[in-house]
Amino acid sequence: MKHQDAVNRLKTAEGHIAGIRRMLEEDAYCIDVIQQIQAVQSALNKASKIILEEHLHSCVITAVQGEDPTERERVLQEIMDVYETSRKV
Amino acid sequence: MKHQDAVNRLKTAEGHIAGIRRMLEEDAYCIDVIQQIQAVQSALNKASKIILEEHLHSCVITAVQGEDPTERERVLQEIMDVYETSRKV
Amino acid sequence: MKHQDAVNRLKTAEGHIAGIRRMLEEDAYCIDVIQQIQAVQSALNKASKIILEEHLHSCVITAVQGEDPTERERVLQEIMDVYETSRKV
Amino acid sequence: MKHQDAVNRLKTAEGHIAGIRRMLEEDAYCIDVIQQIQAVQSALNKASKIILEEHLHSCVITAVQGEDPTERERVLQEIMDVYETSRKV
Repeated sequence: MKHQDAVNRLKTAEGHIAGIRRMLEEDAYCIDVIQQIQAVQSALNKASKIILEEHLHSCVITAVQGEDPTERERVLQEIMDVYETSRKV
Repeated sequence: MKHQDAVNRLKTAEGHIAGIRRMLEEDAYCIDVIQQIQAVQSALNKASKIILEEHLHSCVITAVQGEDPTERERVLQEIMDVYETSRKV
Repeated sequence: MKHQDAVNRLKTAEGHIAGIRRMLEEDAYCIDVIQQIQAVQSALNKASKIILEEHLHSCVITAVQGEDPTERERVLQEIMDVYETSRKV
Repeated sequence: MKHQDAVNRLKTAEGHIAGIRRMLEEDAYCIDVIQQIQAVQSALNKASKIILEEHLHSCVITAVQGEDPTERERVLQEIMDVYETSRKV
């Protein structure tokens, strides 16, 4: 199930960051630390993508097919915001 | 001290991800979860930036001022790789 | 009108890139050139965002409210693809 | 020569944006337009990368090996700024 997949990825990311923190405390090579952080970020992006995909296929469909134009507008605006912020974190 | 600042940010990120995982397990609103993941990404970027800055001011200066052209080339190439990957995580 | 706004931004970006190309041909300082390229990229992102927003408010609403589940799926998948690629250019 | 390679990529990007502008004026499908803009973004990133690589191998080496600590600091700070901005355009 996709939702559980995102939960698992977050759990893995937690352990990964704990490991990177220890690398840093033990004075590992800077570039190795940065590359491990980039690997966690890639995993977090995969989790975000899974959640966004679920969201499009549930809440967004419901809101766009629904009767309430304000709610529809709100849901579309949220997608724009997530898209915008994903580039600026 | 800057190094310790990066360690602290990673420690905070660990706790933050644990919290996001619980949000997801308790079926929080998708967009709220995605925005929290984006906040963690931003914190991880800050940690990477601190580490890269330390790296430029230590290893990179040493290698560029050193006698070994292979080592100098290696260190400059690593910066290019980190720059490249930072856009693709 | 929003569509025209995106056209104008692309027109400006064209002229901007021509200027950057001349800077480069006249051996301007590398960092100044890179910063100008980043300014064009920011302008192109604004144009993309305007177009995506139009798309959500027209084609996406039509497809999601429509009768054809294949078409709805196609349109949602396109949004996921655009989201994914926007991070990897 | 690498410098010329960056000039050529910018020239191609100019023509590409002109083509995208015409697509938009002729009401092409939004997603096709966005994907073409992403292709230009990717080409501009390649040009930036070439220029940054040249810069590391010339000005940065000169400054880091030079006698002036203020100049060295300025050059390293510029790299941090370019790295930071590259994620936020």
